Amino acid sequence: MQMSHVFHHPLCCKLLLSRFAKNAPILSSLTNCVSQQAYRHRIHSSALPQFCQKGASASLLSTLHGHRYVSPINSCTTRHNSNEASSDTHKVQLTSERFPQLKRNDSYGRLNEADIEYFVKLLPGRVVSDEDELEGANTDWMYLARGSSKLMLKPKTTQEVSEILAYCNSRCLAVTPQGGNTGLVGGSVPVFDEIVLSTSLMNDIIHLDKASGILVCQAGCILESLSTYLEDHDLIMPLDLGAKGSCQIGGNISTNAGGLRLLRYGSLRGNVLGIEAVLADGTIIDCLSTLRKDNTGYDLKNLFIGSEGTLGVVTAVSIQCPPKPKAVNLAFLGCSSYENVLATYSECKNNCAEILSAFEMMDLQSMKFVTTNLGLSNPLGECPFYVVVETSGSDAQHDEEKLNKFLEVVMEQQYVMDGTIATEPSKIYALWQLRERINESMMKSGVVYKYDISLPLDVYYDVVIETRQRLGDNVLGVVGYGHIGDGNLHLNAVAPTLNKTVSDLLEPFVYEWTAKHKGSISAEHGLGFNKRNYIYYSKSDAAVELMALMKAKMDPKCILNPYKTIPVCKPASKQ
Amino acid sequence: MQMSHVFHHPLCCKLLLSRFAKNAPILSSLTNCVSQQAYRHRIHSSALPQFCQKGASASLLSTLHGHRYVSPINSCTTRHNSNEASSDTHKVQLTSERFPQLKRNDSYGRLNEADIEYFVKLLPGRVVSDEDELEGANTDWMYLARGSSKLMLKPKTTQEVSEILAYCNSRCLAVTPQGGNTGLVGGSVPVFDEIVLSTSLMNDIIHLDKASGILVCQAGCILESLSTYLEDHDLIMPLDLGAKGSCQIGGNISTNAGGLRLLRYGSLRGNVLGIEAVLADGTIIDCLSTLRKDNTGYDLKNLFIGSEGTLGVVTAVSIQCPPKPKAVNLAFLGCSSYENVLATYSECKNNCAEILSAFEMMDLQSMKFVTTNLGLSNPLGECPFYVVVETSGSDAQHDEEKLNKFLEVVMEQQYVMDGTIATEPSKIYALWQLRERINESMMKSGVVYKYDISLPLDVYYDVVIETRQRLGDNVLGVVGYGHIGDGNLHLNAVAPTLNKTVSDLLEPFVYEWTAKHKGSISAEHGLGFNKRNYIYYSKSDAAVELMALMKAKMDPKCILNPYKTIPVCKPASKQ
Repeated sequence: MQMSHVFHHPLCCKLLLSRFAKNAPILSSLTNCVSQQAYRHRIHSSALPQFCQKGASASLLSTLHGHRYVSPINSCTTRHNSNEASSDTHKVQLTSERFPQLKRNDSYGRLNEADIEYFVKLLPGRVVSDEDELEGANTDWMYLARGSSKLMLKPKTTQEVSEILAYCNSRCLAVTPQGGNTGLVGGSVPVFDEIVLSTSLMNDIIHLDKASGILVCQAGCILESLSTYLEDHDLIMPLDLGAKGSCQIGGNISTNAGGLRLLRYGSLRGNVLGIEAVLADGTIIDCLSTLRKDNTGYDLKNLFIGSEGTLGVVTAVSIQCPPKPKAVNLAFLGCSSYENVLATYSECKNNCAEILSAFEMMDLQSMKFVTTNLGLSNPLGECPFYVVVETSGSDAQHDEEKLNKFLEVVMEQQYVMDGTIATEPSKIYALWQLRERINESMMKSGVVYKYDISLPLDVYYDVVIETRQRLGDNVLGVVGYGHIGDGNLHLNAVAPTLNKTVSDLLEPFVYEWTAKHKGSISAEHGLGFNKRNYIYYSKSDAAVELMALMKAKMDPKCILNPYKTIPVCKPASKQ
Repeated sequence: MQMSHVFHHPLCCKLLLSRFAKNAPILSSLTNCVSQQAYRHRIHSSALPQFCQKGASASLLSTLHGHRYVSPINSCTTRHNSNEASSDTHKVQLTSERFPQLKRNDSYGRLNEADIEYFVKLLPGRVVSDEDELEGANTDWMYLARGSSKLMLKPKTTQEVSEILAYCNSRCLAVTPQGGNTGLVGGSVPVFDEIVLSTSLMNDIIHLDKASGILVCQAGCILESLSTYLEDHDLIMPLDLGAKGSCQIGGNISTNAGGLRLLRYGSLRGNVLGIEAVLADGTIIDCLSTLRKDNTGYDLKNLFIGSEGTLGVVTAVSIQCPPKPKAVNLAFLGCSSYENVLATYSECKNNCAEILSAFEMMDLQSMKFVTTNLGLSNPLGECPFYVVVETSGSDAQHDEEKLNKFLEVVMEQQYVMDGTIATEPSKIYALWQLRERINESMMKSGVVYKYDISLPLDVYYDVVIETRQRLGDNVLGVVGYGHIGDGNLHLNAVAPTLNKTVSDLLEPFVYEWTAKHKGSISAEHGLGFNKRNYIYYSKSDAAVELMALMKAKMDPKCILNPYKTIPVCKPASKQ
């Protein structure tokens, strides 16, 4: 690995960044070269043989989302497109078998011939009942959840979605809305026999106002397709994800996806200007405003953002798209303490202010895993903490000057012990690998217990220290890394094998610790099926009751994405 | 008026901006020197004699909010602090008399001695029943609405708010939450005898995370006090309003205030991270998250943002505060057509990108009013359109270079006919006057019919042209100006006197036109009492029904801010 600059305090404060080539590919694009390939093929072992080692392919899978999970399934098998048949998906245990205590609610109707006839007439050629084709739609990305739906519907228009839901509501047929099926919490696949309502054919770009950068499109548009479309107009989507080659904007919105650009452009709650959604009874809610300012009544659009299809099916969206940045820079720094990481972040915000696009942290334990297990080179000396700073701006020279000014301050103040700057995309990519491949490296040592949490910055790293003390010699290591800029921490414990002592020491400790410090037990992936019962660690009883009240009012028969998000959600007839 | 530079295409493309003095006061601060003086005294004619001409003081009043309204009351009278007595407020017609067809709903209880005793015991020394003191709380800022409340309560804690609402709900006593009482749609004052729940004593700053810039405070904190507090930490509030000397953050959030920084920092929906609110029955909803990422369940906080106190009383807030900009620049430009205004805006976004903080438009007709009626100098030649561009960034030199580059492009492309740049605060202030005093200038000619609407940029100015054609010689002029960057248009028609022909030509034409183009009939001020019945022009029946459903579910007795926001809201017992 070659870096363009390596500096050591206090001698090299005056380093200058080389100017980036205009429109140079940035990290997200580079990682996606791998990611999208893997994604589109749902991991062909032949395509990516180097990852087919102990646990590594599961890591790669999760790398697509920028986060890592333990998957109990060996993913080094061929996985087809979600809507295509794959014999391997049959190996995934049915959710109903994994959780035998969870019963299908018998208030839901059973699909009959008349239902099929109705749908075939409504959606000629777009009703899928072929078992192989359904298998992809029944199985989630993580190979953790598998439903047994017998029917997938592919509407093209909002009106068709409305008619589908009105019919299902009248028959009390449960429905699972599905976008790209790239969710990480089992939210986008059926639990039992829910009908899959796929938005994959709802992929029209409706309008782009080039002057304002406001895009209106159907929910099924693939994120990458939108990015490509905007590229011609020097605009970008305000969010970017590793899964962008498959995930759909409607799914992004339904899960309130975070992603790589949140620090710079903010969340979807700020960037989405309007939404069109269909309620459980088929009512179309047209709040597809293209306005930055609209204060007429309650904010319905945010009800649908992040509610995982349980309150309505998002059918179209208007979204504010920022101008494409003309320059991207990266610095990799070492700090002597977490306090100095925070001080560095503070100075970075002061000096890089409007151009700061990423501020990531990894601890020494993380660095040891990537260097020892993956053989990556640490370009710096041994530091308790490392920081990745990325800037994205409209003028390369200005951005370099700002970054240099920031570096001068943090070196002078001794917030930073050591650092290096990469100015070429290949070198930026290499540096990002140190941060991005931590999970893969840990999984080479054994089992990784993983938590993806948000915490206030003043206690952000304390949970790592306390967990490390708590686990002691029971584990090979406890590491912490994540998006400081977003307050999003990845806390991981590595053990040689699955171990009940470790599990019991970790849970509910981590959730309770997170709750005590007003953190979130799900930073950006939602609750879906997997995490719905943990909601009380992040939300008060009163808040959950209010959510349940809204669910009951907006979907009284509870036909929309049942067994998701809210812990208890029975059909009205059972309550 | 002296400007530092005047340039004329194509000769002066290479002009350079002088470097701004660091921390120089910017326009908002300067205008607020006047605004706050007027605001704090609620317009003393002795303090501001120069405004005491035909309609001018009403203009000044409204200037505090950055927008302008016709007020039927001559405001050149002494107006005291909202919570202080003033004999003049008695002159404001009671809302119940102005709208005799609107009846008090008799399902609401009448205040009795036992109620007073309860509140006095709960809030010793903080129960106001003095008629003079109540007068300010009963009367709105615009002197358009006046209630007849007999009681104002001043809780200090969330628990007290909870106990107040639980009691009121049990007794079916209607409540009007009130912050700084600076709203513009009659939303913050009682309509009949509702109890005023003032948040003015809930003004504690709870916590500031200096590293992340996340501030947590009680709802009654005055916006300017928060700004002053943050100043020491090189942070700013993400919103700024002319009324900042009086308005409270809880009120800002309850009305989803827009303000001067929206273009740069986005809306409150993106910047507010968490909210604590009390429901009608006294239930405390603690969603006071300080996290940038939290995807656990439905987004309750946005239910309270912009719902004008009708769904709950906001008691505390956490908000993301950006770093203080170190430099501010301004350019005043002339364009030959609206298309060129848009092209200029597009180039401005491309070149000034991350530092653009305002992009305002005014047409020639606006310019004629300010030059003719106020004697202000037009620094440019006669142009069909004028544009104000403001930048705010972290490096003065960089910002100047970006602005120059932008100017070179728009001059070369002939998007801009003429332009001038002010580099000193006093000159920036003078240029802003041309934009800010348009309303005042129009009101000197007679009656101004005003609409504050949002529109997509491709049709933004069309409504001005069509209205001008429609009104013809019936008016002295039709002008358009506003925040291009936010899609927020001020459409105004000036007539010598009130005229039914003009009124009939304007309404419902303007509302229908706005609705047809998916605009908003209230860009940033909410609906409150004044505009609640116009909601259908911007929201579908289905959307309004869903809002009403939520209101009915969250406040079944409809005790919270009745007769506001939603057109029909009767107590449950009447339905």
